[in-house]
Amino acid sequence: MRKSKDKPQNDRIGTVDDVDDMNISPFTSQAMASFNNAPPRLREIMQSLVSHLHGFAQDVSLSENEWASAIEFLTQVGKKTTDRRQEFILLSDVLGLSMKVVEINAPLDPKATESTVFGPFFVEGSPEIPLGGKLPGEALGAPLFVSGTVTDTERTPISGAQIEVWGSDGEGKYDVEYLTTGTAGRGHLFSDNKGFFSFWCVKPSYYPIPTDGPVGHLLKISNRPHMRPAHIHFKVSAQDYKSLVTHVFAEGDPYVTSDAVFGVRSSLIRRFDERLDPITIEGTLRDGPWYETTFDAMLARE
Amino acid sequence: MRKSKDKPQNDRIGTVDDVDDMNISPFTSQAMASFNNAPPRLREIMQSLVSHLHGFAQDVSLSENEWASAIEFLTQVGKKTTDRRQEFILLSDVLGLSMKVVEINAPLDPKATESTVFGPFFVEGSPEIPLGGKLPGEALGAPLFVSGTVTDTERTPISGAQIEVWGSDGEGKYDVEYLTTGTAGRGHLFSDNKGFFSFWCVKPSYYPIPTDGPVGHLLKISNRPHMRPAHIHFKVSAQDYKSLVTHVFAEGDPYVTSDAVFGVRSSLIRRFDERLDPITIEGTLRDGPWYETTFDAMLARE
Repeated sequence: MRKSKDKPQNDRIGTVDDVDDMNISPFTSQAMASFNNAPPRLREIMQSLVSHLHGFAQDVSLSENEWASAIEFLTQVGKKTTDRRQEFILLSDVLGLSMKVVEINAPLDPKATESTVFGPFFVEGSPEIPLGGKLPGEALGAPLFVSGTVTDTERTPISGAQIEVWGSDGEGKYDVEYLTTGTAGRGHLFSDNKGFFSFWCVKPSYYPIPTDGPVGHLLKISNRPHMRPAHIHFKVSAQDYKSLVTHVFAEGDPYVTSDAVFGVRSSLIRRFDERLDPITIEGTLRDGPWYETTFDAMLARE
Repeated sequence: MRKSKDKPQNDRIGTVDDVDDMNISPFTSQAMASFNNAPPRLREIMQSLVSHLHGFAQDVSLSENEWASAIEFLTQVGKKTTDRRQEFILLSDVLGLSMKVVEINAPLDPKATESTVFGPFFVEGSPEIPLGGKLPGEALGAPLFVSGTVTDTERTPISGAQIEVWGSDGEGKYDVEYLTTGTAGRGHLFSDNKGFFSFWCVKPSYYPIPTDGPVGHLLKISNRPHMRPAHIHFKVSAQDYKSLVTHVFAEGDPYVTSDAVFGVRSSLIRRFDERLDPITIEGTLRDGPWYETTFDAMLARE
């Protein structure tokens, strides 16, 4: 029935000529047609978005008060978002949309390390540390030594890969939640000529997604789980390879099967081994316990 | 095939038991199931929203860069939104979603005056004016006298109805676009015991939707019409009646067939008659031309 003669009149702003427009509302037709002259990819995206948003409103018979509540909710998400807190990403995360996009964009090569959500706590311009160094700042928690390699999917080392790392402290807080300036628990380093890297951070804790904003409120009124299992964020980038955004999760975490943002993948779970002997970190002797884990990142070709 | 045995495993956070989950992504299943314990209406809304948002991402194979652009776009919409400028409403308007919601919520009584978009320029707490008074402030433009009645759909007068009015000036600008405080071209009054009301404002002009924000930018890169025909906004409220949010459009406006937000309905178009004789407005004699129009609001029962 595409392009049938009895399609609704929508010639006020162009025409819809590539959608099945049976029983479509004239407002949906007009809004889709209004993007007819957009560049092809933008047109495709916006027409699908309009179709799905209108379909959503129709399916639930969205009331005017509910629409106004949605506008107010998005306004509050906007107010909560700063350079150090991305409430829109958090919203995308708790709706599962972030993981859906990860799924859609998964590398064809099944040996590549799996991706997960980017999360709301990334900050541009983290400090650089040397191999074996400690993430700067005063994050609280037991020391954790992370080592691993960056390779391609045939295990050929990738030297000079940028490894960006960020994580919560031992109480489940990110620096942006307890510092107004400066950083703690975040940094970046580069793999050596064997693809090797290592650094000291603190053992992260599970934590609730931030409850001081509208997204936390949405989870609360939805009686929804709102905890994330302990994890360290990685973004690994190297020329000619697809950037890898992922986490390393701690084996045995109580929330590893109920992540509020659906980010856990079994391939990303690692043992955090406890060590009880004293340890010297950047020249300072510390008592145990400390922890150790490994993470090998295998990147797919771009 | 509902509740079939071969549905995806999604028992990590509850289960989806009221959607057709054939071929559904595990992330979509999990995100929908996460709202299983929400209050019924919230659950219905959020599960439909998740389903449609994921469907959109799947249909267009949304890339990670496109997702990040969407997050940045919404962040900019949030930054542009203030108590005096509602960029999220403008976004809803240009996507046709606002008119879709108007359509869904149209009164069953076909004699009721038709609604249209609320728009981004409403401000709470406008000044009250007497019957026959002038909207306060210094809006530029030719005087326009508006008179009419508020009645039910059987033409029985409704006394004491609140009539909120706002409009652009003769150059197409709203007060919030040229004033940082105070008002011009907005106010409210109450119908008399015959349902009658009248007031002086200025003859509005057609105008571009605001191009200084992300929504204006979206229309620009989409090569989309971005003009609105001249109109006056009304919100008419009375106890036991459904509030009416609508416009009066000027007959003959060059953009009356290509409104950027799809808000024109033929039943809302009125003649703005030109008068050339001098006129006294609030005790001041003014030269013509001035204009006159009428608008009868017929409200549906709640």
